[in-house]
Order: sequence, then structure tokens, then C-alpha cells
Amino acid sequence: MKMKSVIIGVMGGGSAGAEDLENARELGRGIAKQGWILLNGGRNSGIMDASAQGAFEEGGMTVGILPDDHADRVSDYIRIPVLTGMGSARNAINVLSAHIIVACPGGCGTVSEIALALKSRCPVILFRFDAGNIFDSYAQHGLLFREESVDAVLERIRKTVSVV
Amino acid sequence: MKMKSVIIGVMGGGSAGAEDLENARELGRGIAKQGWILLNGGRNSGIMDASAQGAFEEGGMTVGILPDDHADRVSDYIRIPVLTGMGSARNAINVLSAHIIVACPGGCGTVSEIALALKSRCPVILFRFDAGNIFDSYAQHGLLFREESVDAVLERIRKTVSVV
Amino acid sequence: MKMKSVIIGVMGGGSAGAEDLENARELGRGIAKQGWILLNGGRNSGIMDASAQGAFEEGGMTVGILPDDHADRVSDYIRIPVLTGMGSARNAINVLSAHIIVACPGGCGTVSEIALALKSRCPVILFRFDAGNIFDSYAQHGLLFREESVDAVLERIRKTVSVV
Amino acid sequence: MKMKSVIIGVMGGGSAGAEDLENARELGRGIAKQGWILLNGGRNSGIMDASAQGAFEEGGMTVGILPDDHADRVSDYIRIPVLTGMGSARNAINVLSAHIIVACPGGCGTVSEIALALKSRCPVILFRFDAGNIFDSYAQHGLLFREESVDAVLERIRKTVSVV
Repeated sequence: MKMKSVIIGVMGGGSAGAEDLENARELGRGIAKQGWILLNGGRNSGIMDASAQGAFEEGGMTVGILPDDHADRVSDYIRIPVLTGMGSARNAINVLSAHIIVACPGGCGTVSEIALALKSRCPVILFRFDAGNIFDSYAQHGLLFREESVDAVLERIRKTVSVV
Repeated sequence: MKMKSVIIGVMGGGSAGAEDLENARELGRGIAKQGWILLNGGRNSGIMDASAQGAFEEGGMTVGILPDDHADRVSDYIRIPVLTGMGSARNAINVLSAHIIVACPGGCGTVSEIALALKSRCPVILFRFDAGNIFDSYAQHGLLFREESVDAVLERIRKTVSVV
Repeated sequence: MKMKSVIIGVMGGGSAGAEDLENARELGRGIAKQGWILLNGGRNSGIMDASAQGAFEEGGMTVGILPDDHADRVSDYIRIPVLTGMGSARNAINVLSAHIIVACPGGCGTVSEIALALKSRCPVILFRFDAGNIFDSYAQHGLLFREESVDAVLERIRKTVSVV
Repeated sequence: MKMKSVIIGVMGGGSAGAEDLENARELGRGIAKQGWILLNGGRNSGIMDASAQGAFEEGGMTVGILPDDHADRVSDYIRIPVLTGMGSARNAINVLSAHIIVACPGGCGTVSEIALALKSRCPVILFRFDAGNIFDSYAQHGLLFREESVDAVLERIRKTVSVV
């Protein structure tokens, strides 16, 4: 695969607690500082908005893959909104387009993205997100990681994407 | 919602053990005997093929929502193959189109369908499928059930779909 | 390709004149009498509703591939509504799933379906629909036909599908 | 609609003549010089590759919405490849995401994109592409334009997008 652009998918809930939002913002800043592209679901709420804000404010590129067919709910921090008009079917696009997925705390949408990513053998980092034990077999195959800090997530991305 | 047709989504792995396949076949027969429509992923393997076979041999209607853009891998027991050409994005169609989902043992594809179903508030029955504890909160809201026999699954469908 | 089920896609406008609606109804009846499956966009308006009505009243099988993620606008004459939640992206599913497309008078949605069908080499019959000269080269390759009566359309389907 | 980013969709054939390719390259350069984002189908052939090349070499941003689920056929000039894995269903995303579509010479894929764009009321410029008379009514409603030079296309974009 050509690696001119490294695309990091950041997934997580449409609503989230203050600490998770701050972590997402810091993660977005870290992604931008590396020159990587941040890709997420693009809406103006929760982890999507916070991670985009961090990357945007650091001057980074932010791409949003929206479920909607209109721009009413696009985050102000998304430079390139891709309007799919496909609802949750767009989750499949998120995981195909990213070189690695960081899953922040979220609900069923986020779980579906973890599952679709692993199915298509895209590596996933669980960042302070407890996904139970359902995906444990993937950890043994080097596709699923758990990290507790932004620095550890960034280090894991560096190691993983370079060998993909 | 109009309820002229009751559509039961049966999800599960593209490969499965002998007991799970026999359960899927029996479930398909039970669905057909009720006059319900069986909808699944449509391929000629695993739970998809087995559940379609059971329903088909009982004279029931079987609809397959295929990931492929061609008919090479359609189950012989699918009367109406819908070719989406969309890969795993078609999982979103499965859960939107069914009135209830029965999740037989499977992998990440099945987990993504459970997650997408619950997100869109479609009830899910876990039929001998251990999905860990990740979806437990939905059990408390009457959207997630666990059953251990075909009879119990059919009874749960009857109760749940009539009140949806 | 397995040909257990023959699926006829009937496309056309969400609104239409009285004569076009009557033609669509008659076409639906003819399709059902042949034992073929009618597949269309599934909504309760225009050519979709009329063609489904004709087939339904004759006891035929009718499948609707809906753009919506809910059942509010499903035609009463659709036995199997497939809810895609994908808007016009579902047009691609219509043409992949049908063995042949009959294009009744319609607007840009119908034109997009003719174009997508021909691109994937699915035969198209223009039934009293003037699509200009833009698709003429396909007529020379045996993929595009023009017919003026329901009987001629049915005869053309018989000839074309048997050799596909 | 927020207009921080102006996204120009450039559609056209996967293969094209030398003059059409040179026009697409020049159009890409012009789009980049304006600071607009170029969005196309993303593959390494025809109008897609040529228009991306023009924009890329001018330092512009290029986004490709690929039909594929892998990166094997991505143009070298696409900075952000979005892999949909959805085949021609991704045409619907192209037209929803762009503020205006420029249709260069192409085949049925391009015709489907023109039709889908007009259906969703996205303006379309036919750039040396003869689409017959099928879309003429949209010209009267200020949604369809015909232009013969890159300069005229760029001027038309400026006028049209500022009033959308």
C-alpha cells in the first residue's frame, strides 16, 4: 500500500464525559503534530468533534465521513466533510479508509466499527475503552491493542503502521 | 409500522460447527412454519446457508442480502438474492430490514450486526452466542435476549415482535 | 448464474401520469403471471406503487429496495421491503439485483439507474421512456431496447433473460 | 451550509482521449490555484488521474472516493483516498459531498453522477461533454451549465458556488 498519507481513524461516542473529550482533543493534537491525517465520523458532537478540534487547532488535516446527506451537523473542525447519506453503513467506509483505528469510549456505533475493522484486518487500539473480552483473540494476532495514555497511543500507531 | 410481513434476520458465522449448523437449520424450519420471512447474508456457507436451507425446505421465503456484486456465492436456498456490491456495509441493511435479529455464533461480522441492530433499536436474540458483557445494558432495556433452544428463540420472537 | 428466480427490476418516477401508471400496473400483472419476481424502489408513489400493485394483486412476489431507514413510505403492495437507509446509493443495488431493468417514464433517479445498469452490463428496456440519444451505443450491443406495449416488454424480457 | 472548504467534484471517464486528459489536468491546476478542494473517483486512470495530477502538482488538496476496498488502484495524485468498497454506489457520495460537479467526457458512470447530482439539486457543469438533451429542463432552472474552456468552467464555478 502506498503510504504517502497516513490516515488515523478516531472513533468514539457522539456524547462523552469531560475527561474522554479532553483525551480525544489531546489525541487529535498529537496526530496533527505527526503530520498524520485524522479521519472520523465528522459530526459536531462527542469524540468526533473533540478529536477534530485538537487536530484542527494544531493545523492538521481532518476528514469527516458523515452519515448524513446534508452539512447541518458537520463539526466546525472538519476540513473535508464527506457526506455519504448512508447512516451507519458509512462505518464500513471509516474502517476501510484508515490505516489504524483508535477506539475511544463509545457505544454500539463504536463497537460496530471495531468489529468491522478487525474483520478487514485493520489494527485497532482501544484507548481507555473497555470492549469486554469479545475481541480478545485479535490481541493475540497483533491486531488489537489497549493503551491508557495519548503518548502510548501515538507510540503504538508509530510501531504498528510502519510494519503494516 | 405495517406488519404484513414479519422479517426475521438470522446472523452468524460464514463457518460454524456441526451443532451450530444444525441449530440454524432447525431455526430456519421454525421460522418458515410460522409464515415468517427469513433474511440473512445470503452466502452459500456457514449459518447463512444452513438457516436458509431449513426455511427453504419447509417452503418458506428466504431473502439474502449479499455483500457481493455477483451471484457466484449465493446459497442455493435463497429465493431472493439482493446483490449489494457493498461488502460489509450491507450489514447495516440487514439490521434495518429485519424486525428482530437472531445472532447465532459468529465472528466480527456478526458482532457488528448486533451492534448496529441495537444502535437502531432493533431487538436482538443471542442464540447460544456469547457476546461477552459489552451489550449488557441493552438487556435491561428489553432489546437484548439470550436463549438456548430453537423453541425458546421462536417464543421470544413471538413475544417481542408483537409488541414492537 | 443460477436462474431459479427471475428478478425483473421496474424503475420509473415517484410521480407519473395516469397512462404511465396504468401501464406500470399492467406490466406488474404480466410479470406476476410469468412467475417472475418484481423488484423496484418500494415506495408508495408513482411507478413504484403502481407496478407493485399490479404484481401483488395477481399474487406475485414484490420486493422493494427502499432509500429510507424506516417503513413509513413503503408501498402496501410490497411483500418484502428491504430498508437500506442509503438514499439514492440504493439505486446501485436495484440494478445489481435485477436480471433485466424495465425503465418506465421517470426523472433523474430513473436515468441514474439506466446508466448504472448499462455500466454493469444489465440489459435495459425503455418502456415509453425517451432517454434521448445518450445511451444509443448500448442498443447496438444488445443491452438497450425500446418497447411501446406491455406485451412487447414481456416478450423482450423472455428473449433477453433466457440468453443472459 | 458552512463554506469554509469549497469542494469541486470532477467526474469523467476512466479512459479518455489526449485532449480531454489535458483539459482535465488544466482544470485541476485551476481548481488548486483557487484554493478549492478537488474531489473525484480517485483511481489511477482517465479523467480521475489527470484532474488529480493537475491539482496535486499545483499543491492543491485532492480527495478520491474510491469504489474499491483496497488501495491498489489509487491515483498517485490523490492525497486523501477514501476507500468505500461499494462499487458504483459510491457515485452517490461523490455528488453529495461536492458543492458543484464538473462533468468531463465519460460513459455511463459519469451520466449516473450527473443524474444523481441534479436529483439532489447539486449544480452540474458539462465541460465538453455531450449528455444529449435528457437533462435540458435543469438548464432552465439554473442547475445545468455547458462550458467549452477551463477558464469558463472556473468562472462558472465562482458564480454558482457563491450563490448556492
